[in-house]
Amino acid sequence: MSNSIGTVFRVTSVGESHGKCVGAVVDGCPAGLKLDMDALAKEMARRRPGASSVTTSRGEDDAVEVLSGVHEGHATGAPILMLTWNRDADSSKYDAIRDRPRPGHADYTTRARYRGFNDHRGGGRASGRITAGFVMAGAVAKQVLATIGVEVHAYTRAIGGVEAPEPSGDWVKAAEASMVRCPDPVASEAMIRAVEEAKKQGDSVGGEVACVATRLPAGVGQPVFDTIEGDVAKALFAVPAVKAVEFGAGRRLAAMRGSEANDPYEMRDGRVQVSSNNAGGVLGGLTTGAPMTLRATFKPTPSIAKSQRTVDLAAGTDSEISVEGRHDPCIVPRAVPVVEAMVAIVLADHALRRGTIPQVLGEKK
Amino acid sequence: MSNSIGTVFRVTSVGESHGKCVGAVVDGCPAGLKLDMDALAKEMARRRPGASSVTTSRGEDDAVEVLSGVHEGHATGAPILMLTWNRDADSSKYDAIRDRPRPGHADYTTRARYRGFNDHRGGGRASGRITAGFVMAGAVAKQVLATIGVEVHAYTRAIGGVEAPEPSGDWVKAAEASMVRCPDPVASEAMIRAVEEAKKQGDSVGGEVACVATRLPAGVGQPVFDTIEGDVAKALFAVPAVKAVEFGAGRRLAAMRGSEANDPYEMRDGRVQVSSNNAGGVLGGLTTGAPMTLRATFKPTPSIAKSQRTVDLAAGTDSEISVEGRHDPCIVPRAVPVVEAMVAIVLADHALRRGTIPQVLGEKK
Amino acid sequence: MSNSIGTVFRVTSVGESHGKCVGAVVDGCPAGLKLDMDALAKEMARRRPGASSVTTSRGEDDAVEVLSGVHEGHATGAPILMLTWNRDADSSKYDAIRDRPRPGHADYTTRARYRGFNDHRGGGRASGRITAGFVMAGAVAKQVLATIGVEVHAYTRAIGGVEAPEPSGDWVKAAEASMVRCPDPVASEAMIRAVEEAKKQGDSVGGEVACVATRLPAGVGQPVFDTIEGDVAKALFAVPAVKAVEFGAGRRLAAMRGSEANDPYEMRDGRVQVSSNNAGGVLGGLTTGAPMTLRATFKPTPSIAKSQRTVDLAAGTDSEISVEGRHDPCIVPRAVPVVEAMVAIVLADHALRRGTIPQVLGEKK
Amino acid sequence: MSNSIGTVFRVTSVGESHGKCVGAVVDGCPAGLKLDMDALAKEMARRRPGASSVTTSRGEDDAVEVLSGVHEGHATGAPILMLTWNRDADSSKYDAIRDRPRPGHADYTTRARYRGFNDHRGGGRASGRITAGFVMAGAVAKQVLATIGVEVHAYTRAIGGVEAPEPSGDWVKAAEASMVRCPDPVASEAMIRAVEEAKKQGDSVGGEVACVATRLPAGVGQPVFDTIEGDVAKALFAVPAVKAVEFGAGRRLAAMRGSEANDPYEMRDGRVQVSSNNAGGVLGGLTTGAPMTLRATFKPTPSIAKSQRTVDLAAGTDSEISVEGRHDPCIVPRAVPVVEAMVAIVLADHALRRGTIPQVLGEKK
Repeated sequence: MSNSIGTVFRVTSVGESHGKCVGAVVDGCPAGLKLDMDALAKEMARRRPGASSVTTSRGEDDAVEVLSGVHEGHATGAPILMLTWNRDADSSKYDAIRDRPRPGHADYTTRARYRGFNDHRGGGRASGRITAGFVMAGAVAKQVLATIGVEVHAYTRAIGGVEAPEPSGDWVKAAEASMVRCPDPVASEAMIRAVEEAKKQGDSVGGEVACVATRLPAGVGQPVFDTIEGDVAKALFAVPAVKAVEFGAGRRLAAMRGSEANDPYEMRDGRVQVSSNNAGGVLGGLTTGAPMTLRATFKPTPSIAKSQRTVDLAAGTDSEISVEGRHDPCIVPRAVPVVEAMVAIVLADHALRRGTIPQVLGEKK
Repeated sequence: MSNSIGTVFRVTSVGESHGKCVGAVVDGCPAGLKLDMDALAKEMARRRPGASSVTTSRGEDDAVEVLSGVHEGHATGAPILMLTWNRDADSSKYDAIRDRPRPGHADYTTRARYRGFNDHRGGGRASGRITAGFVMAGAVAKQVLATIGVEVHAYTRAIGGVEAPEPSGDWVKAAEASMVRCPDPVASEAMIRAVEEAKKQGDSVGGEVACVATRLPAGVGQPVFDTIEGDVAKALFAVPAVKAVEFGAGRRLAAMRGSEANDPYEMRDGRVQVSSNNAGGVLGGLTTGAPMTLRATFKPTPSIAKSQRTVDLAAGTDSEISVEGRHDPCIVPRAVPVVEAMVAIVLADHALRRGTIPQVLGEKK
Repeated sequence: MSNSIGTVFRVTSVGESHGKCVGAVVDGCPAGLKLDMDALAKEMARRRPGASSVTTSRGEDDAVEVLSGVHEGHATGAPILMLTWNRDADSSKYDAIRDRPRPGHADYTTRARYRGFNDHRGGGRASGRITAGFVMAGAVAKQVLATIGVEVHAYTRAIGGVEAPEPSGDWVKAAEASMVRCPDPVASEAMIRAVEEAKKQGDSVGGEVACVATRLPAGVGQPVFDTIEGDVAKALFAVPAVKAVEFGAGRRLAAMRGSEANDPYEMRDGRVQVSSNNAGGVLGGLTTGAPMTLRATFKPTPSIAKSQRTVDLAAGTDSEISVEGRHDPCIVPRAVPVVEAMVAIVLADHALRRGTIPQVLGEKK
Repeated sequence: MSNSIGTVFRVTSVGESHGKCVGAVVDGCPAGLKLDMDALAKEMARRRPGASSVTTSRGEDDAVEVLSGVHEGHATGAPILMLTWNRDADSSKYDAIRDRPRPGHADYTTRARYRGFNDHRGGGRASGRITAGFVMAGAVAKQVLATIGVEVHAYTRAIGGVEAPEPSGDWVKAAEASMVRCPDPVASEAMIRAVEEAKKQGDSVGGEVACVATRLPAGVGQPVFDTIEGDVAKALFAVPAVKAVEFGAGRRLAAMRGSEANDPYEMRDGRVQVSSNNAGGVLGGLTTGAPMTLRATFKPTPSIAKSQRTVDLAAGTDSEISVEGRHDPCIVPRAVPVVEAMVAIVLADHALRRGTIPQVLGEKK
């Protein structure tokens, strides 16, 4: 059950980096949802490798096949199985890592967990390739949320020490236009340079993705354990390389006063609204009606060409490794749609749990 | 089910701030665990209000009654129901908040969620008082973890802008000796001043708790969704006022290079170890065998005497509120044992899920 | 988690036969439900021991204390903790069974499961006393179901080989008037004689409870695993002594033809109805809109005064046991409200899952 | 989540009768299990349609593709996705049932549940075809159970009113040799005649499957809700047409005395054993160490050529229907491996939950 997430809208992840396929089963999608396959393909394209100089050169078309749960264009209420076939996996480079675990990767921990039976090729289940299945499920979740007007958008807030200013205007479009998905053109350029510099040196860089979900009504969520924040954070930590998650003003709240941190209420446009949003749209695990805002920190891609110290598990000695293969010198740009997917999955689940979105959308003629 | 957490070691939270009691049901505690009631009482005392000038004056003895699941001193394998009775609840101050939601609190969101049927007194289920039940369950979890030598300790890393240096030596003892649970005496003094200053001004301050779990074997955890990080984060976001969670080097990883962030492996003392711990002891959602390290950011206590802008929900107009009652000007010191409790609960659950700790401890004569 | 059942309306069972209390936590009760404590007490009275010559003489008032989740008479949406204190437990007779397991009881299997750490007194968690907590939760579930007009009623269909005819007229009232809860006066008398005869001989008898749930709308339930039948059956097998569960025509369907077994549809009173009900109101795991009908077989009470062969686990030899203590010579009459409770719990859960009953009932003024 | 079952060994069902495929995801299969694909194919063959005159003529090869979770012949601990492609679906006959629900089928209830968006072709998710996925998962479960010697075997005990005597000798082999999977040759012949007679008359017959699981150690299972009986019953009611489930002496216990029903313990072959098995190997929801025995009643196949009364949902009038298409006049023989699969799935889950089977089998060289 550890490969499933959600209660009403429940996503099960399947597949391995170098196995036959990666995909997802979505159980609990509202019957009657008209599935927009173009929108799904577009989300996959945003995550797809090989799109630019800052990403891996692995070539996958990432075409999605829907194998169940959809009939005559609509979700039926049955589990939706979606797969994409792995076509360009190159497993030749991975024999080395069986005994010499790559630092920063899950090679050693997975081997300890499964005593060597795990599929180690390309990192197996711990590979970023798994997130292709997350994006499929997230694309469905986005379409579910769209039925009540909720939108989820993310962007690159930081890469390699370069931080973008708070975005404004039509930043969603600006972010998509940037090779690193940063809406600020100046920061975007600096980020690209940081990635290319690291790549040149056989190294990698980390960064941060910011995400906003808009038009959520107030009162979505479940106390006390299944909070919006807790469930979103749990979903985000399933994305390889995420090491920190914060909501609203996040870590900056540690140094604030209550009088500064509390978001005052006011009547605006005839309804209760907050005049600031340090809470990031969530109080007591429940939505306030303000945009939900969060940030996720991504560590640098662990795969680097530079030589690193490791051990030889077979020999029981110290050793070295230089990670070959095709890797992203920075995972952050491709992680942007993945963060959106995880947030959408959790919000769709909570909106369905709460009854904010019904389990059947309309009636079939 | 939103008031339960865990799979094998499953904790259900019960009670309200101003109801008859708060407590927890622990289902899945290993049969045969010799329950140390003194240790449990000690954990409760660490969280207890009224202990110093930096905490609320609400007086509760927080004595715990074990009502089921323990026989002749040992856990039986049946659900353990633990309660403490609320004795010093003063509900007289809470009529005001029914219509005028306190900024930063869950008054407004809970009302939206439950259309006014929630117990609003003292914040009801959204009150920090709920964490008394978390600490009970956490105390049991700690005793479960102790059977394999795992210890969980936390301390105050920051309050009101004052940050403590990385602790060393016997910091666990030093932290407990500090009124604010900060092991560094200089920072500790500065933190106390920051709290008292804020209190004097009718205000409050936030801060940060750091936590370390030691002696976890490698390979505990579950990919891909039930990661150690995801489950710990989810548990921590159930603690009122937590707004950010980070593991290992956390947010600082965003600006690092891979060659710097990756923790090299080496053979040391005859076994595989990491020579740094930026990962915070977790890779791919699984433990590395290094200490698990994390930080949680607490926002300033939302209850402040200072007047704040809010709305009058009955009148539909803007309004003001000054939060009366007895409140902590800073929740961080009392949150230290709560963070430990949440971490212990999740680790006990994962150790049991993984079979690292058996479901029955020994055999009864 | 094995002591919890349900998804949205989730019941956790606590307590032991000879511990301090037995009870239940109900998580997910719709906020706003006006809790009728008299109705709850009445359900408890129906299950209470000591009421007649055909039941045990253990005297318990079974008064229920609601310790959380209810405020100003309404459910708040928070977990409802309900307990009754054990007052008349007599543990003096149970030392014998530690080493000599009683045939038909769970003494041996529980000891194997928990290696002796289980609370063996009075059967501990495996005792029928546990069902007091089921009835509390069931009483709440019945009140939830009443908001959409659904009623759940059961009666004794067979005891000790005596079978009652299909009931008609106001059988609910007639069943309650019978000492054995059988609506047919002739069968009722014969059943009482069968119980008294067995009791006289130091023996016990089994029987069968039939149950009907009326006014369920069509389409409640979840395919493919969380069927109404599957979830009801699972709940019923938690009741000690249940060994068979059948729906509608049940076992008799094995010998039928399809043309006889299929329930034809017809338009009646302006809506689709079935003209027979061999399916017991469920097809494909979903309700048809016809009454849900089922039967549960109860084995004879395992506790009998007659000497039985057993083993001495300490000595590793064959032995004998005569079960002392106060026991029901027939559990069936007291099981009637328990069966209702289990069915109500499952139906309330499914009605909430399906959205047939909303999560908040009305709005608080 | 309603399409998943199990906790540690968790099976998710996917696919529709006339969609692209049917299959299952198994999450939690122990890493290191050497997957025997021949054994899996053999189980599929036992369930396959078109094998004899008493089954449907739909021709499917039911070849299983394993798309994830297996590497170099062993389970990796990751989710195992198994599919078989639907090749011989004939949807031409199903337009009629959109508005005229077939009596005894789930057409009407599913339409009510999903307001017409369900895939109605061939019964969609409510079709017996879904059980192909159950058998895949069950085949894996059987291999998991085999690691501790547990075997699960079923046979046809009754068809169309013909009942087989209690089997003896090598009944497993005898059952497989029979066209209706009944080990008794005389009963077998009578059953075949009953099926053929019904078929000739455009009708169908029901029956009963008995199942035995051997070599389970004592103490497997979980009180109080996740009992072996409850979980097995729940799994069985997911099989279309099952309407009753009984364990051990089952319904016959209703008329027994306690002195007769209780299974005495005795020391035999140096260990505690029961000298009868009316409990069917389960007491208090836990295994006794005796064989687990159960029976499941199957109603007659609802699809019959005979004209039946139904309604026209579009017109709102009474109507008639004669079910065309290829159907089994008796589902029982093909249900035998399905019952085994469900029992194996539940027992594997419980053995893993209990730690009786470890989560990793051995260590990879």
